[in-house]
Amino acid sequence: MSSRIAYLGPEGTFTEQATRQWDREGAHELLPVPTVPAALAALAAGEVGAAVVPFENSVEGSVPATLQALQETQDVRIVAEELVRVQFSLLVRPEWAQRPIRTVATHPHAAAQVRGWLAGELPEARIVPETSTARAAQAVAEGQYDAAIAAPGAARAYGLAEAAEQIADREGAVTRFVVLRAGVPVPPPTGADRTTLLALIWANRPGALLELLDQFAVRGIDLTRLESRPTGEGLGEYQFWIDATAHLTEARMTEALLGLRRTCRDVRFFGSYPRADTRATPVPEHADEQTYAAAAAWVRSLSGPAVTSGPSRR
Amino acid sequence: MSSRIAYLGPEGTFTEQATRQWDREGAHELLPVPTVPAALAALAAGEVGAAVVPFENSVEGSVPATLQALQETQDVRIVAEELVRVQFSLLVRPEWAQRPIRTVATHPHAAAQVRGWLAGELPEARIVPETSTARAAQAVAEGQYDAAIAAPGAARAYGLAEAAEQIADREGAVTRFVVLRAGVPVPPPTGADRTTLLALIWANRPGALLELLDQFAVRGIDLTRLESRPTGEGLGEYQFWIDATAHLTEARMTEALLGLRRTCRDVRFFGSYPRADTRATPVPEHADEQTYAAAAAWVRSLSGPAVTSGPSRR
Amino acid sequence: MSSRIAYLGPEGTFTEQATRQWDREGAHELLPVPTVPAALAALAAGEVGAAVVPFENSVEGSVPATLQALQETQDVRIVAEELVRVQFSLLVRPEWAQRPIRTVATHPHAAAQVRGWLAGELPEARIVPETSTARAAQAVAEGQYDAAIAAPGAARAYGLAEAAEQIADREGAVTRFVVLRAGVPVPPPTGADRTTLLALIWANRPGALLELLDQFAVRGIDLTRLESRPTGEGLGEYQFWIDATAHLTEARMTEALLGLRRTCRDVRFFGSYPRADTRATPVPEHADEQTYAAAAAWVRSLSGPAVTSGPSRR
Amino acid sequence: MSSRIAYLGPEGTFTEQATRQWDREGAHELLPVPTVPAALAALAAGEVGAAVVPFENSVEGSVPATLQALQETQDVRIVAEELVRVQFSLLVRPEWAQRPIRTVATHPHAAAQVRGWLAGELPEARIVPETSTARAAQAVAEGQYDAAIAAPGAARAYGLAEAAEQIADREGAVTRFVVLRAGVPVPPPTGADRTTLLALIWANRPGALLELLDQFAVRGIDLTRLESRPTGEGLGEYQFWIDATAHLTEARMTEALLGLRRTCRDVRFFGSYPRADTRATPVPEHADEQTYAAAAAWVRSLSGPAVTSGPSRR
Repeated sequence: MSSRIAYLGPEGTFTEQATRQWDREGAHELLPVPTVPAALAALAAGEVGAAVVPFENSVEGSVPATLQALQETQDVRIVAEELVRVQFSLLVRPEWAQRPIRTVATHPHAAAQVRGWLAGELPEARIVPETSTARAAQAVAEGQYDAAIAAPGAARAYGLAEAAEQIADREGAVTRFVVLRAGVPVPPPTGADRTTLLALIWANRPGALLELLDQFAVRGIDLTRLESRPTGEGLGEYQFWIDATAHLTEARMTEALLGLRRTCRDVRFFGSYPRADTRATPVPEHADEQTYAAAAAWVRSLSGPAVTSGPSRR
Repeated sequence: MSSRIAYLGPEGTFTEQATRQWDREGAHELLPVPTVPAALAALAAGEVGAAVVPFENSVEGSVPATLQALQETQDVRIVAEELVRVQFSLLVRPEWAQRPIRTVATHPHAAAQVRGWLAGELPEARIVPETSTARAAQAVAEGQYDAAIAAPGAARAYGLAEAAEQIADREGAVTRFVVLRAGVPVPPPTGADRTTLLALIWANRPGALLELLDQFAVRGIDLTRLESRPTGEGLGEYQFWIDATAHLTEARMTEALLGLRRTCRDVRFFGSYPRADTRATPVPEHADEQTYAAAAAWVRSLSGPAVTSGPSRR
Repeated sequence: MSSRIAYLGPEGTFTEQATRQWDREGAHELLPVPTVPAALAALAAGEVGAAVVPFENSVEGSVPATLQALQETQDVRIVAEELVRVQFSLLVRPEWAQRPIRTVATHPHAAAQVRGWLAGELPEARIVPETSTARAAQAVAEGQYDAAIAAPGAARAYGLAEAAEQIADREGAVTRFVVLRAGVPVPPPTGADRTTLLALIWANRPGALLELLDQFAVRGIDLTRLESRPTGEGLGEYQFWIDATAHLTEARMTEALLGLRRTCRDVRFFGSYPRADTRATPVPEHADEQTYAAAAAWVRSLSGPAVTSGPSRR
Repeated sequence: MSSRIAYLGPEGTFTEQATRQWDREGAHELLPVPTVPAALAALAAGEVGAAVVPFENSVEGSVPATLQALQETQDVRIVAEELVRVQFSLLVRPEWAQRPIRTVATHPHAAAQVRGWLAGELPEARIVPETSTARAAQAVAEGQYDAAIAAPGAARAYGLAEAAEQIADREGAVTRFVVLRAGVPVPPPTGADRTTLLALIWANRPGALLELLDQFAVRGIDLTRLESRPTGEGLGEYQFWIDATAHLTEARMTEALLGLRRTCRDVRFFGSYPRADTRATPVPEHADEQTYAAAAAWVRSLSGPAVTSGPSRR
């Protein structure tokens, strides 16, 4: 693998933090790129060996730019995921620490998550929307505003000081990042895996979503994520991003994929990979590998003559 | 195959008629046997090459003796079926044709099917229950009763005359017979096939029957018969006899059997064989052989690296 | 209520035993009648105040004659049920106790339940089918056969002796009897009730049985019995006898009946009545009376203007 | 109703266009407000009689700010909807028409929808993200950038000229707007209605979403929108925004709401109102008002004594 990893920049974002978390030993060069498509292009061109992009946030939901970019490529697979706890800081230029704060720049999503804190601590400040929290930090460094709401990492990246830490109104927001690679096989199962899919159902068939969910339910596969997204073809036309807690190589998942492929208008496979939380997936007895193998052996035996069968399967 | 065919006797029953219907060329010796277990024993011992027994009737439902006997063997398979339209005749000794009829013997099931006719034509006659319609005919031949309600074939078998024909109150009752063989493989699919199964569900799982039906429904397999039978283990404990319109070798049926085997307490396979009515089974596009093959190829391709896929599946 | 109770005779059957069990104080005169329709006719004519008939057996399944007769009347309701443990005895004339037994008469159903015992104890005896176990006992009393397999109560009824008791091969067979009345309202709920229904589904709608089962499942109503019966209209045409563990007056049952009536080809209600085993029915929280009442109040509130609602429902 | 209507400003957005579309006669004063919560506050304070806000877009999906604001109020109801076809124009200062365009400001969502056009027509231009398309237009008017991608209406609002029209890459994007009011009853059914709901399912119950969908499916109610949104409580915790094609006062909808209220963790009702496309909703026979009324009458009749029923329901 190329020694470089692309990540959705700029520097100082939570994505950089997720990338460092994945590259535990710091063995790789990290390359910030401006957009998710740019990250995918760098992967496709072989300029980087992996790319890290944000996927979903427990408060805001999925990251549309990532979903859109993944939808438009056939070349990459998710091979890992990282979770980062979202913490916001109030960043100022070091020399500004004692001065009054009249303007605060940030991304509207971040503003929404610190609204209560701002109302209590800086009731007079004017909030200025910027296109990213890192851009807001940079603008503070350039003297455009008095302060920025941004990731703690942005302080180091832009030479700012943390005037206040952990200012999100609600504890515990988490962002999930995915690590993408090209031209690699699916990683082997670990017993605590996730599979990411995109399914497009037949819009004119009323029970289509019920059928889709059933493909997983009857095989004891839990979904940790089911997110509707417009197809762009008209109001009421949806596709569904799905995270399922099973690995491609498990018989129950193989059969579910077969079912989806048969009944959906389209289905895309974006990888099977270890869960960041390493939480093992309980598999009901009727859907585990041994049960599938025994059932398959039984079905194979049926085409020959009837013979006295052995004891019942349990 | 042994040149003899056993059938549930005695002579003159609808079962003999079904057997002659199956043995179109009259090439085999027909052997009446007194019970269904006796027919199965003759098969198992190699004394006969096939056995014909009644399976279900459109008015009375399934034939408990046949179901019970099949349940208790592991050795035989259904390889064909025959349908016989049920017609009852009033049989008398030839010399009795002009005399008054005061006693009519028959099996209670048959009595139920001609109740209206008897009330209209022989209001004064006493109805005497016998253990089979053929036994009733025999008793008439022996002079015990004045008349019998029986299959038309019983006239020839016992030297009786038909005093009245086609006397069933309701037109169109049909009995289905099955042809059993031992030690033979499943006959090849014809496009108009039936598969007979016996499924025992987990009694303490409320949705178990829903799940069972779903195994067929999601794969576009129609059931032409679903009949509950007590397991003998207690009130409220059922097993289900199922006739499904697909052949063992179809992918959708293979997968359904796999699902049944995984989720039922027990499942027994009694054969895939051509439908007597040769009515072809329509298969929904999402469950036909081509769709299954294409979906399986797609799933197999997923474990390798992502590659630009070809056009969508349709 | 008339002081007499009709029961399916003759004397000495399990039905008489069930009737005495229900008429605990022996306050009523018991009237054996020859057929189930005769029992219903006596009820309809006001000649008796109640009628007791067999409904289902844990080994043989339902009693076709009862189901058929109930189907054909609109006049009666099940108001109670009784369970009787099935015990067979070998009955002989008192003076015959020491003599060899060469002929044994019984009903074929009973013969099936004592087959093993007969093979072990009376391997040489010839088994003669009769139309009921009581008829067999009577024939023994008349000297036609050496012995009868019948209910213990038949000894007293026909002046016979019990040469052997409790000879059924399998312990624990149970028969359920129902008590029928005419012109009475549904008995009040006891918390341990059963409702008996007959549903005719649309034969040409593949998912019809799934839908029917779903009407109960989504409302947390367990079925203790689901029995398919031919409609008589052709092979593959079924109606379903259903026992559901809820009372007509429960909101969840009311709503389920509404759903059945809307979606089935026909549905018949045969009564809500206390379970003989007095086993209380657990009701899931989402389907209990309080939840239904609260939800109904909420829905009623919606047609007015939006108002600040109170705390969430839990 | 107050003579004023609030809408999500600034002037020149598609929301203004939707508002004018609803206020057909131009009878009301239109009041742009900066945020959706501001619109709701104006409604609650009685300062305006109605408020118009964007709800969903066929390309981008739902509008998070609207969903968030609706979730946080108990005071308003949707009483109508308007559809507006999305058209983007390239806006410049009138005097700039012939000059080269080096900078183009717009909202990132709009940039995504005209990406192809920009690549073909203005390959050299730098795209600058702004917080709304109207803000971009305003900045052009102030001389900050050379051009803006915005709604056609922004030309009039900011004194700009349309250098190019209808430049969206994909024809046919549509935005749906909703009209909100406070303190008014639900409008009467028209036969072509929609009901908007928010349902929070029990996260730890695997089949919960299947159950929710089933509440509509079994009553023949189609969903035109099902959109998952994070609850903010953690990854994998969802609530679902639902648009159902039935009116609160229809029996099938009343019953579905009852079912949702019983089985969901929480359910919110945001109004039943006429569809903008006036497309009448087909109601299956088993779920129409007559069938419900007849079934309810039948169920009510059951608690009395059994009586000879009239002819079957069809």
